Amino acid sequence: MKICQVEKTLVATARIGQLGNRRLLVVKERGSSGKQVAVDPVGCKPGDWVIVVGSSAARTAAGSNDYPSDFTIVGIIDYWEETEKEMKQ
Amino acid sequence: MKICQVEKTLVATARIGQLGNRRLLVVKERGSSGKQVAVDPVGCKPGDWVIVVGSSAARTAAGSNDYPSDFTIVGIIDYWEETEKEMKQ
Amino acid sequence: MKICQVEKTLVATARIGQLGNRRLLVVKERGSSGKQVAVDPVGCKPGDWVIVVGSSAARTAAGSNDYPSDFTIVGIIDYWEETEKEMKQ
Amino acid sequence: MKICQVEKTLVATARIGQLGNRRLLVVKERGSSGKQVAVDPVGCKPGDWVIVVGSSAARTAAGSNDYPSDFTIVGIIDYWEETEKEMKQ
Amino acid sequence: MKICQVEKTLVATARIGQLGNRRLLVVKERGSSGKQVAVDPVGCKPGDWVIVVGSSAARTAAGSNDYPSDFTIVGIIDYWEETEKEMKQ
Repeated sequence: MKICQVEKTLVATARIGQLGNRRLLVVKERGSSGKQVAVDPVGCKPGDWVIVVGSSAARTAAGSNDYPSDFTIVGIIDYWEETEKEMKQ
Repeated sequence: MKICQVEKTLVATARIGQLGNRRLLVVKERGSSGKQVAVDPVGCKPGDWVIVVGSSAARTAAGSNDYPSDFTIVGIIDYWEETEKEMKQ
Repeated sequence: MKICQVEKTLVATARIGQLGNRRLLVVKERGSSGKQVAVDPVGCKPGDWVIVVGSSAARTAAGSNDYPSDFTIVGIIDYWEETEKEMKQ
Repeated sequence: MKICQVEKTLVATARIGQLGNRRLLVVKERGSSGKQVAVDPVGCKPGDWVIVVGSSAARTAAGSNDYPSDFTIVGIIDYWEETEKEMKQ
Repeated sequence: MKICQVEKTLVATARIGQLGNRRLLVVKERGSSGKQVAVDPVGCKPGDWVIVVGSSAARTAAGSNDYPSDFTIVGIIDYWEETEKEMKQ
């Protein structure tokens, strides 16, 4: 699983039906400038450091094997070294 | 899921039967020069910023677990910072 | 799906039984120096620009969910900007 | 499978129910500065060099196809060249 | 599938039960310094150039959908340009 920081909510009105109205968040992987979109079944807020699962496990983590996610938040990290973050990102 | 921008339609007349006549688009991932091909069940136009799902979820998102896609557009982003785009790409 | 160019056939006499006698091709991903091996159910020739699917969809695309492929050609691109190719690769 | 070194335990109190109370470890892939989170069904300690499986096999390795892991430790390497580690990381 | 060269056998006495006693090899991907661990159902020796399958197909290739592999050798390449190897690696 990846260590990411939540940036903000992403709005996509035109979408396939299977996505439903689940909350989509823009997240940034630790030590990288790349941004990805993750499904959030946990309830995160911007700035949270989270654990995000990919691969086929992202479907299960989103609540159903038919849910079309490849990146789903599975937990919020209690404490993450913020100083390290400041230096590397 | 990845954040990509749609470039254009891709024509591939010689193809396996399972691909059917679904629309294939060339998309460019945000912050990268790499181009990939995505299945489009949403109806996008060139220039749209979209959310694209990979892994096994791309099959479900394309409408069937038997559809041979590993990259399927699931939504069009309502608003994406274009200025940021200009600087990074 | 990835955009690749076919280089040549790959011969591997010692192989697992599930691979069967399907044709294996060395392909080079666009804009990269990395070479991969793809299963070819379409019938490509060296120099062709092709669409290649990965992940679990590569099994379906090869004709069976039990076929051990993670990279299968699904179509030949009708026209690909060759000049662009010359500059970037 | 990847070759990683265990760093420490990761605490994430707010998590989805499917994660259960399995132990999560921060691991660092050999030759990379990137850190990932792995499920540990083996019982590792910080400093151990381990084999970690990804993709859908990470679910099976965690004990159930419904477990939402994409990175699971499957074994502890008996001996790994530590000097090589010192030079490359 | 990836093109890799076999380096040596990897010993991991403490392992999950599902791994069984299959042979694990350290392999190096062509043109990369990264090392990975692959399951070997073919019977390779150090120095062999091999085709390795990843993703969920690695489970099937290892002999069972329940086998926790994400990287399995599926064939030995009959002839690989060794001179090219010397220059690029």
